[in-house]
Amino acid sequence: MGEFGLIKHLTKDIQPVQPSTKKAVGDDCAVMDFSPIHNSQFTMHNASDVRVLMTTDMLLEGIHFNLEYVPLKHLGYKAAVVNFSDIYAMNGTPTQITVSLGISRRFSVEDIEALYSGIRLACEKYGVDIVGGDTCASMTGLTISITCLGVAAEKDIVYRNGAKLNDLICVSGNLGTAYMGLQLLEREKLVAQADEKAQLQFEGKEYLLERQLKPEARRDILESLRKAGVKPTAMMDVSDGLSSELLHICSQSNVGCCIYEDKLPIDYQAAALAEEMNLNIVTCALNGGEDYELLFTCSLDDYEKLIPIDDLYIIGHITKPEHGCNLIGRNGEEITLKAQGWNAFSRSATKS
Amino acid sequence: MGEFGLIKHLTKDIQPVQPSTKKAVGDDCAVMDFSPIHNSQFTMHNASDVRVLMTTDMLLEGIHFNLEYVPLKHLGYKAAVVNFSDIYAMNGTPTQITVSLGISRRFSVEDIEALYSGIRLACEKYGVDIVGGDTCASMTGLTISITCLGVAAEKDIVYRNGAKLNDLICVSGNLGTAYMGLQLLEREKLVAQADEKAQLQFEGKEYLLERQLKPEARRDILESLRKAGVKPTAMMDVSDGLSSELLHICSQSNVGCCIYEDKLPIDYQAAALAEEMNLNIVTCALNGGEDYELLFTCSLDDYEKLIPIDDLYIIGHITKPEHGCNLIGRNGEEITLKAQGWNAFSRSATKS
Repeated sequence: MGEFGLIKHLTKDIQPVQPSTKKAVGDDCAVMDFSPIHNSQFTMHNASDVRVLMTTDMLLEGIHFNLEYVPLKHLGYKAAVVNFSDIYAMNGTPTQITVSLGISRRFSVEDIEALYSGIRLACEKYGVDIVGGDTCASMTGLTISITCLGVAAEKDIVYRNGAKLNDLICVSGNLGTAYMGLQLLEREKLVAQADEKAQLQFEGKEYLLERQLKPEARRDILESLRKAGVKPTAMMDVSDGLSSELLHICSQSNVGCCIYEDKLPIDYQAAALAEEMNLNIVTCALNGGEDYELLFTCSLDDYEKLIPIDDLYIIGHITKPEHGCNLIGRNGEEITLKAQGWNAFSRSATKS
Repeated sequence: MGEFGLIKHLTKDIQPVQPSTKKAVGDDCAVMDFSPIHNSQFTMHNASDVRVLMTTDMLLEGIHFNLEYVPLKHLGYKAAVVNFSDIYAMNGTPTQITVSLGISRRFSVEDIEALYSGIRLACEKYGVDIVGGDTCASMTGLTISITCLGVAAEKDIVYRNGAKLNDLICVSGNLGTAYMGLQLLEREKLVAQADEKAQLQFEGKEYLLERQLKPEARRDILESLRKAGVKPTAMMDVSDGLSSELLHICSQSNVGCCIYEDKLPIDYQAAALAEEMNLNIVTCALNGGEDYELLFTCSLDDYEKLIPIDDLYIIGHITKPEHGCNLIGRNGEEITLKAQGWNAFSRSATKS
């Protein structure tokens, strides 16, 4: 059934009863309105435009990370950043997190300090407070569950369902790079296992490692968009792969899309490693997960404003729903997009 | 170092940077003020007295629950209720939860539906919305991580640090009952293991099972206090055992306490089973966890208002800090309280 299928199945007929619940399951975050107007117990009865955003991510050892090559500090950093990325993907600002850890006996206090120092470093960088959590023994591996709150003005929030016909499809950074970083780590792990004295081949590929081990959330892109006076019509972060995320936006917005192979932003280190490993870099860019870039749609009227923005790429446009979701190859061939993303539920590829 | 020691160690020098963070680590919940006044990006600049509360609990198979005798639906119900209990322990109202599940292969979709149906039942009963979550494969057992939001007017929030000299110490319901329910389940599990055809001895002890398997959060007590016009000076829920929780209140309020053995509310089924199993029921009442009753302190002036409240017991009073934290036995002997509670970090006793 897969992760998305199971969540959909379990939550399909849930009807919110709290007036403060504005958006429940189905986007990067839940959205709450805690204005006093909704609660007779409070003394002030003005509406406010502040919305509280909430998202959560669980990381399990052996599924989402492999401590053979992921340093604990990096793991902590990434565990926090992936949550911030979900808040930014709603055009919000992350403000608080809670951190729950399940820790087995093989971890020392120093190990947990290292993990926590990574979480704290991410929080310092993004201005987020750690406000609580739960720490308990685990019979097995390491479990990390982080929940993040954020804020946004109601008028600023960008959902997944707002893409309109002819909107431009944009993506930040580059795609498939974190996935190639994972491939590199997996390859070198096997090399090291076969020969303890082997020289690991990371030189010239440091950027791939960084993208896999220490991703950043694209707060800078939102700032650029704000300065340029552009508000996306729909937005997500790319955690499961471009194809999968685009299909979410299209299905929720009831539109189709057309993206172009030659417009996909691909890093040259990633392309070189893909060549070396006999992988198709376009497939990696479409389906590799964990890039934590922002994928969004904008009105065609914003085209001129988008062009000067650094590290932003227009990769296609929104079509009528009956045209489906397609990639146009370099030779003009039309390929139907499929969600093959790094779904941690259906296979054991690393995903978070 | 223990769970509390480790959390304290990891979070000791964290300084909140978000103006919306009013209380971070150290109470039943974190407290946030999302009034627009703190955020220049918002259009309205009035202060509001709404505070957002946040709490989180992680439950790990083999540590917090044993699926040999805990039905999945009950487990889901309890996993939600323990979070609600933390919100009520701040005198707030729970409003939203996110639910993250790590699920290993041995669980079927029907199993997860059963678990989720328990969570949903608890949400319906307490008027709480499920607004998100994460569902992923686990290499090992079942992991449940729930984060709960709630609301309270600023003036209504009760922290742990407000107990004053001569305040009355009150507790709802009864103590040690959930622990005796666990002892009963453990005993009968061994009986069943030894002889598959053995008749399990649950008759006349159903209440103990209910307290262990399907605890309720004491929303009703808060309603009674509100109607009586009483606001506690300090409050917690009893999840780790009375001694442990009282020591938290006293240390955070910088006071001592004196409670009386003959005032401790003890259920007769629990007392009978303790006798049968050769356990000291007073020790169980002091140190047994998972009762999810409310423990709070009130001004002595509220004495007359407290007396008529159903299922509420005055068990002692607050003293000067130099007197320490003591239990007065039936024969007048003074026993120093120790935190031996059901700390899931230092041992594998069931606790949530």
